[in-house]
Amino acid sequence: MTIGEDMKKFMDEEFLLQTKTAQRLYHDYAEHQPIFDYHCHLQPAEIVADSRFSDISYVWLGDGHFGDHYKWRMIRANGLTEQEPDSWKKFEAFADTMDNLIGNPVYHWTHLELKRYFGINEPFGLHNAKQVYDECNRQLKENPDFSVFGIFRKFNVYAVGTTDDPADTLEHHAAVKGKTATLVIPSFRPDKAVNIDADTFRDYIGRLSKAAGVKIESADDVLKALEKRLDFFVSLGCKATDHALQDAPYAETTPSEVNSIFTAVMGGKKPSEEEAEKYRFYIMRGLGALYAKRNLVMQLHFASLRNNNSAKFRLLGPDTGYDAVCDCISASKLSRFFDSMEADGVLPKTILYSLNPNDYWVLATVMGCFQGEVPGKMQLGSAWWFCDHKDGMEQQMKALANVGLLSRFVGMLTDSRSFLSYPRHEYFRRILCNILGTWAEDGEIPCDMKLLGNMVSRISFGNAKQYFN
Amino acid sequence: MTIGEDMKKFMDEEFLLQTKTAQRLYHDYAEHQPIFDYHCHLQPAEIVADSRFSDISYVWLGDGHFGDHYKWRMIRANGLTEQEPDSWKKFEAFADTMDNLIGNPVYHWTHLELKRYFGINEPFGLHNAKQVYDECNRQLKENPDFSVFGIFRKFNVYAVGTTDDPADTLEHHAAVKGKTATLVIPSFRPDKAVNIDADTFRDYIGRLSKAAGVKIESADDVLKALEKRLDFFVSLGCKATDHALQDAPYAETTPSEVNSIFTAVMGGKKPSEEEAEKYRFYIMRGLGALYAKRNLVMQLHFASLRNNNSAKFRLLGPDTGYDAVCDCISASKLSRFFDSMEADGVLPKTILYSLNPNDYWVLATVMGCFQGEVPGKMQLGSAWWFCDHKDGMEQQMKALANVGLLSRFVGMLTDSRSFLSYPRHEYFRRILCNILGTWAEDGEIPCDMKLLGNMVSRISFGNAKQYFN
Amino acid sequence: MTIGEDMKKFMDEEFLLQTKTAQRLYHDYAEHQPIFDYHCHLQPAEIVADSRFSDISYVWLGDGHFGDHYKWRMIRANGLTEQEPDSWKKFEAFADTMDNLIGNPVYHWTHLELKRYFGINEPFGLHNAKQVYDECNRQLKENPDFSVFGIFRKFNVYAVGTTDDPADTLEHHAAVKGKTATLVIPSFRPDKAVNIDADTFRDYIGRLSKAAGVKIESADDVLKALEKRLDFFVSLGCKATDHALQDAPYAETTPSEVNSIFTAVMGGKKPSEEEAEKYRFYIMRGLGALYAKRNLVMQLHFASLRNNNSAKFRLLGPDTGYDAVCDCISASKLSRFFDSMEADGVLPKTILYSLNPNDYWVLATVMGCFQGEVPGKMQLGSAWWFCDHKDGMEQQMKALANVGLLSRFVGMLTDSRSFLSYPRHEYFRRILCNILGTWAEDGEIPCDMKLLGNMVSRISFGNAKQYFN
Repeated sequence: MTIGEDMKKFMDEEFLLQTKTAQRLYHDYAEHQPIFDYHCHLQPAEIVADSRFSDISYVWLGDGHFGDHYKWRMIRANGLTEQEPDSWKKFEAFADTMDNLIGNPVYHWTHLELKRYFGINEPFGLHNAKQVYDECNRQLKENPDFSVFGIFRKFNVYAVGTTDDPADTLEHHAAVKGKTATLVIPSFRPDKAVNIDADTFRDYIGRLSKAAGVKIESADDVLKALEKRLDFFVSLGCKATDHALQDAPYAETTPSEVNSIFTAVMGGKKPSEEEAEKYRFYIMRGLGALYAKRNLVMQLHFASLRNNNSAKFRLLGPDTGYDAVCDCISASKLSRFFDSMEADGVLPKTILYSLNPNDYWVLATVMGCFQGEVPGKMQLGSAWWFCDHKDGMEQQMKALANVGLLSRFVGMLTDSRSFLSYPRHEYFRRILCNILGTWAEDGEIPCDMKLLGNMVSRISFGNAKQYFN
Repeated sequence: MTIGEDMKKFMDEEFLLQTKTAQRLYHDYAEHQPIFDYHCHLQPAEIVADSRFSDISYVWLGDGHFGDHYKWRMIRANGLTEQEPDSWKKFEAFADTMDNLIGNPVYHWTHLELKRYFGINEPFGLHNAKQVYDECNRQLKENPDFSVFGIFRKFNVYAVGTTDDPADTLEHHAAVKGKTATLVIPSFRPDKAVNIDADTFRDYIGRLSKAAGVKIESADDVLKALEKRLDFFVSLGCKATDHALQDAPYAETTPSEVNSIFTAVMGGKKPSEEEAEKYRFYIMRGLGALYAKRNLVMQLHFASLRNNNSAKFRLLGPDTGYDAVCDCISASKLSRFFDSMEADGVLPKTILYSLNPNDYWVLATVMGCFQGEVPGKMQLGSAWWFCDHKDGMEQQMKALANVGLLSRFVGMLTDSRSFLSYPRHEYFRRILCNILGTWAEDGEIPCDMKLLGNMVSRISFGNAKQYFN
Repeated sequence: MTIGEDMKKFMDEEFLLQTKTAQRLYHDYAEHQPIFDYHCHLQPAEIVADSRFSDISYVWLGDGHFGDHYKWRMIRANGLTEQEPDSWKKFEAFADTMDNLIGNPVYHWTHLELKRYFGINEPFGLHNAKQVYDECNRQLKENPDFSVFGIFRKFNVYAVGTTDDPADTLEHHAAVKGKTATLVIPSFRPDKAVNIDADTFRDYIGRLSKAAGVKIESADDVLKALEKRLDFFVSLGCKATDHALQDAPYAETTPSEVNSIFTAVMGGKKPSEEEAEKYRFYIMRGLGALYAKRNLVMQLHFASLRNNNSAKFRLLGPDTGYDAVCDCISASKLSRFFDSMEADGVLPKTILYSLNPNDYWVLATVMGCFQGEVPGKMQLGSAWWFCDHKDGMEQQMKALANVGLLSRFVGMLTDSRSFLSYPRHEYFRRILCNILGTWAEDGEIPCDMKLLGNMVSRISFGNAKQYFN
């Protein structure tokens, strides 16, 4: 065979590292950095229990919170179903899909997981599905490293930021202290108190009232209750908050108007879109001020269009692979939302994510109007979900670099429900090093390893540690 | 000359194939695949007549359905006019424009046509325009291959899908059977029955009524008439339908409301935008169900803004190079449009095209919520029209790959009015092979020629053949 | 050190020129072309005074019109402030920021300015900030080339197009004639007469009335006054006009309606958004006709969202680094705006800029419907402001090339307030040559140095000279 002589082997040691400089940056400055996974969806109960899982099919494709809807979607696109009740059949459907996944990040993620967790280096597909299945399951059973704490140790996980409801007891966060060297940090996600137009809103306000010990009769009471819970979260180490929003809320209103809207909704009225927006803006602005006071980071996840397939929603519920990218961000509203806090000096540190990469220019330049005080106060978040692949990460990092400071970027997070996702930090770091290495070898930046190595190590870990302190 | 020693020659055998792996994939797995041109605008009358054309200026730049508005636009941008009455003068204006077309796909297409049809390998421009003109015209007259059937044979055209009005007699499709090995398949394009706000709507309903033998007194009657015509189309081999829409129609409504809107419009009322949308949604949803029942493919062409230059429209009519990219797709409406069919189990196989590449993320992820049953049921269509160039094709294929299954892609179509467009399939296949070859040689995918070769041959031909069966 | 042996040095002679062909194109056809800086924000008073500046900190970071808000934004993103009163402290904040600017165009621009103006070739950062500061200030004082005319001579500046208000006396443009070989051309920017919803509108109409000697009692009178001023501008060499607009104005209206709106606003009424749009459309369309009659170029700058930080706006005023990218362009309105002029044969030569690169497809294809008469009549303007970097320039040139004629592009402008910005033309030309060189060496275009060299020299200078004649 004449071809392939100088070509790189599939996912070898220098995977994604196309230049010597990139390779050196990765191995010397990135590879051994700890992981600060500041936003994920791991279950605290499973962490504190130091859980083990015996079935790779369950781990990759199982139902409930553990399911990987990325993989499910691909199985469906391949004309198969993830709803096979039999563990092996389900795995087989995924193996068949793997052969059709060339070009998709799941192809890389899956191979990285096989390599880094199981030491399996062969390309995985239908041809070797049974061997892979058996070997993974054997290791899951036999290898002592395959518990949660074992995985944390193996991947040098400094901290994980879980995603928690304000009404949550955080009992597992309290209980886990001292059991693992990894910091298990709660994050405050008050979506249910913000989404006044959701059917579950009234019930939730009741739960929140109970959890906070605050009687809630107005929007201002909602904020009071949230503040109490926020202080409880902070007492257990909370550093960050998180919000899922279609776009930034903004509508001119008054406290009394918002309180009337709240009262009417609690009385059973369905709010108009305009009323819901006024309430959302009022609460989000109020929360921003609470966050700023406590030096917490506000994460805003924009532009997802959820539960598009109503038949499947009835069958499987939310977060099962029926979400999509939305086109709903308004530059003007985003600007006014931030300005409403900045004008009063209560704008917290903020990370902006959008599911739609078209939004990067708006996000990165609007946030650039509110920088100051601390390095990289306003952050363009790492390429998220449907953008979380090589092309998407390059696009996000280059957008940020072109209109802001890449060197101040807080870097990668998994946003994952799976304990097998830590190689995505490796994936990210390789892509980062490859960008810098390419620039250096093309003469676009100085090939100054101290300068570049420092930048790489900070984006890999140091910036996040400092930002979330 | 020191430069140029290792550089590739202009459009040589390895044109666009930057790696050995890409070259091998192209020559071994793509080059000799038949062409399934499932959507084009060839004239059935000219096919059945096995037409010949004696003037390259007419073939490339002629008036009427044959005109290539891509080339016309470029001539105008060059400050010249395509409205030269003299054949040679018209050709000369294009040759002058060629020298200014560096970087434009027409530059590649034109050279590929000269190479593959006429064996002319010199760069073409004003300096050799007369020789090229004379040589092409000589061959058009003398070479027996330059008839429609000859071209079909030469390019191994397995099937062409023409674009036909439901009221059409399809006499040419009936007559062509047995005359050529190429399948000449009608496609059902009922735009005129959908566009209730067009001036021609009422007249068209009359034509449709007559063609179907159905008295049309309601929107439901429109669907009945279209269903009869659809069955007639299917009897002549129809596999696909086609719709030009600014965006996906969606509006909550009822049959009786839509029937009232229809009656009012037939009585002379101009529908409001909201009324037109309700009617469009109702008809499109109804058609979707008819398509699903017959296992037909629904093609949706979105986001074109047509006839922007009203003075030229009056002079030259539609499809003369005065169209543009629109910014009108709504993720939410698209989602609801599909869900309205999926909820009732009547969502057909669908190919989504947008003229605006910004829409790819929305399109590819919304469609990903409706996959299942058959591999690649929902397709992100090949880069279309203003996107139909190397950068655009790469963008479309990478978008698809990143959030879906590139391997299930049904691939290229010409969408062309010209019999000289078949090299665009070659162009597409080279770009596809180059993407895969680059990934393989960079170690991002396994350099497994069986796996990759199979993928290439399927995207080149097999997937389309299976999808349209 | 094993790495770095074949790698290019940081910003050497072949900076950004990745192929031999690119290098030859740049050095033989681009490097020595004069500069036609057809749109900038230099101060005519400083030009005519042949000003000198003694402090690099003031030149790069000073207050007022001279301040470089690109640099200010980056200093803030770095957690520092540009508001240091001390010259050295301010410079030091910027030097610290430089070390964090890897990947940002300011990193390149700053180094190019140090190289081309000051002969400083070391990478600049905090480690050598004092030496750079002292050396620059020494040269600013001692080197006779560091006056405005000296800079014009050194960079072979053929012409600069300043940006001027219609009410301006243009005394400096009159006075500068004969003092420098560089043409100092006024450009007509009547934003204040267009923005009927600005607080300053009524006052401005008074100033305009006085400057033109026209009593203004209607929108038509506004046009009359502007026409008189326009003729005065033309008498002093004006070739181009300029407009900052969120998007293209379009609203159906009548002269009498617009005149009523004008009268009401002059009487103290705040116009509705719809009324303001009608007025804007009426005036812009009227101005377009005036421009067409005089063969002037109309520049339209779209999609900036200004003054987002209200606290900083009160403190520092406009143009201080608090602007962002907007998402406000409407394809349909843009099309109708042009068509309203084209239909009457009064559409002038036009350059379209958008701050949002997502708009390129809409802009480049809508403008493609209005080409004709002169080569490249409708232009997609060079990557602007937040898009003005290597990725952005490549994106703009490739978008233009894919749907239009790159060879007819009028090329680069600085749009800058600084006399140190001329190396940005070099930056642009290198990127242009690199694109063409890459295509040539990949075999995508002929490696015909006459063809490509001609194209490069025209885009570098010749096209602009011809277009603005």
